[in-house]
Amino acid sequence: MAARTVKLAVIPGDGIGPEVVTEGVKVLSEAASRHDVALDTTEYELGAKRWHATGETLPDSVEDELRSQEAILLGAVGDPSVPSGILERGLLLRLRFSFSHYVNLRPVRLYPGVTTPLAEPETDDIDMLVVREGTEGPYAGMGGVLRKDTPGEIATQDSVNTRFGVERVVRYAFEKANARPRAKLTLVHKDNVLTYAGELWQRVVREVGVEYPRVSVDYCHVDAATMFFVSQPERFDVVVTDNLFGDIITDLGAAIAGGIGLAASGNINPENDFPSMFEPVHGSAPDIAGHGKADPTATVLSSAIMLQHLGLATAARQVEQAVAEDLNARAKDGSERSTAQIGDDIARRVAEQG
Amino acid sequence: MAARTVKLAVIPGDGIGPEVVTEGVKVLSEAASRHDVALDTTEYELGAKRWHATGETLPDSVEDELRSQEAILLGAVGDPSVPSGILERGLLLRLRFSFSHYVNLRPVRLYPGVTTPLAEPETDDIDMLVVREGTEGPYAGMGGVLRKDTPGEIATQDSVNTRFGVERVVRYAFEKANARPRAKLTLVHKDNVLTYAGELWQRVVREVGVEYPRVSVDYCHVDAATMFFVSQPERFDVVVTDNLFGDIITDLGAAIAGGIGLAASGNINPENDFPSMFEPVHGSAPDIAGHGKADPTATVLSSAIMLQHLGLATAARQVEQAVAEDLNARAKDGSERSTAQIGDDIARRVAEQG
Ligand SMILES: CC(C)[C@H](C(=O)O)[C@@H](O)C(=O)O
Ligand SMILES: CC(C)[C@H](C(=O)O)[C@@H](O)C(=O)O
Repeated sequence: MAARTVKLAVIPGDGIGPEVVTEGVKVLSEAASRHDVALDTTEYELGAKRWHATGETLPDSVEDELRSQEAILLGAVGDPSVPSGILERGLLLRLRFSFSHYVNLRPVRLYPGVTTPLAEPETDDIDMLVVREGTEGPYAGMGGVLRKDTPGEIATQDSVNTRFGVERVVRYAFEKANARPRAKLTLVHKDNVLTYAGELWQRVVREVGVEYPRVSVDYCHVDAATMFFVSQPERFDVVVTDNLFGDIITDLGAAIAGGIGLAASGNINPENDFPSMFEPVHGSAPDIAGHGKADPTATVLSSAIMLQHLGLATAARQVEQAVAEDLNARAKDGSERSTAQIGDDIARRVAEQG
Repeated sequence: MAARTVKLAVIPGDGIGPEVVTEGVKVLSEAASRHDVALDTTEYELGAKRWHATGETLPDSVEDELRSQEAILLGAVGDPSVPSGILERGLLLRLRFSFSHYVNLRPVRLYPGVTTPLAEPETDDIDMLVVREGTEGPYAGMGGVLRKDTPGEIATQDSVNTRFGVERVVRYAFEKANARPRAKLTLVHKDNVLTYAGELWQRVVREVGVEYPRVSVDYCHVDAATMFFVSQPERFDVVVTDNLFGDIITDLGAAIAGGIGLAASGNINPENDFPSMFEPVHGSAPDIAGHGKADPTATVLSSAIMLQHLGLATAARQVEQAVAEDLNARAKDGSERSTAQIGDDIARRVAEQG
């Protein structure tokens, strides 16, 4: 009997979701078992198929069940057959909001051997951690429509920023920055235009920063940040930003760090009042689904973030190390592997770690 | 006497603004005079210095004077000594909003010979036109703060999107797409999250699109767009997007097309009810100001957009051609030139055009 059992909810979702999640669980199990931890997994069928069949995105009863789990691994949700926004708002964002995933953690790290669209890649230079706020901002869903379908129609979309919500994520970001060698924190916002929200973010960073004298604080407008991501990525260490800006810059971050196939994320409730959720940044990619062509690496790296969150730091490092080795080997031997083969190879490398 | 005189307001502004604007006017005059057009320029001192001296950003009387001009050339405004947002909202955005610059036109084009941070640059592949909405969205300045400086503080920031405002810019974008060989229009938004605004934008694009059967219409989430800008820029021909998304992706566009030193823009009121305003995308760069180190090319290219807008299409093409030649020469002979030398060289190339 394992010393500890982790109750893990698995939401394979749509498209390539089920394929990549299988490999994620494979590697997770291997890494956990080496530390005498067993996984007690429960699968939840949520996503496009369920919505088509029942009209449900996330029944309350399922949300309640999920609440009693320790962590959630999610593949991807979404399908062209479902109108835009239904699954995003009804499932993905509902989970992030209900479970208070106020930290959306997205490392942007270029592993040795990985190809990037940037010229002269200096692999040591892309290693940042984006701390994206996950429970408010323009994602709050506030706003509405007036005089729909008339020439006088108005649609509003409101960004909500609270002291409470901004402070907790900023504090988390300072903690992360404080623990890193460079100890640099950059606030990304657009405070010269979004003056109400921007002033709050700036003030909170200033105030919380007093408690972290070792951390140097920088500010960058979101527009300039996209420029620096491609021209001077070494400017960034830890980045803290709002929900929408974080969404945008982390896709760009994924692109410069080798593509969306490698980008991992954790939707984290640091207090563990609710289960945190780990998912690749990529979508369901229905065009390649079912052919074993998807790269499960982003999901595997997301499980490493899960292990870290569960207090299994060594296991997390072992998974990351196995992925790094796999990516390096891939750079030398370019032969095609299936989704399952990549998962097998990474799991084997985990098993072989010293 | 010239056949036509154009009343041109010049706002040099702060930092490198005055230096680059001098070169912009130099090239403009050269190009205009070859078509028997004279410039009647009036300089307006607006920006950080005036704000420090008088507390004014844009006095009503100056706004009235500007209203009677045919076009405005702006260098750059902003200085670290002025709190963020004052000059942006009080001068730049005020002009865009007062003068109904609902089209913020930003070409993203990689000229032959120009270095880009992207690997394997294929210069023919980056040639898009971003049509950014300029008078609403999150830039409307709506929102506010409740319970300031208490733990219960809330700051909101509201994006306002009207049928009127969206339709006019979408129509402009379709016109532009229709006139280009590829005739492709991509709406960039985030309609799966910003569902109220996103649905309006989508619906308007669909409806207006019926009038432009030759134009193929595509949609891309803003996060994915940043990814494609660096990995597959050839996906884009004309892009239409809201004020904030447009701000973000055009800085990224500038970066991939050789840097902010080359990125031009026009704040356009297509009906000519008000003077349109042309400005480089870059800021005032106070760190290099006064040393003749700034590259005036973005300002010169912005004046080409002005010439186009004034109906001087041949003159516009001649300026663009001169810039292309200058950039190409620069790629071969890397010797340093001052701001004025670059302006002289481009003006000379304009004069030499057949
Ligand atoms: C699918 C979508 C709602 C989501 C987001 O915008 O957060 C995705 O883009 C992401 O980054 O996880
Ligand atoms: C200075 C700022 C207000 C402006 C904007 O956000 O529009 C600038 O970034 C731009 O793109 O012209």
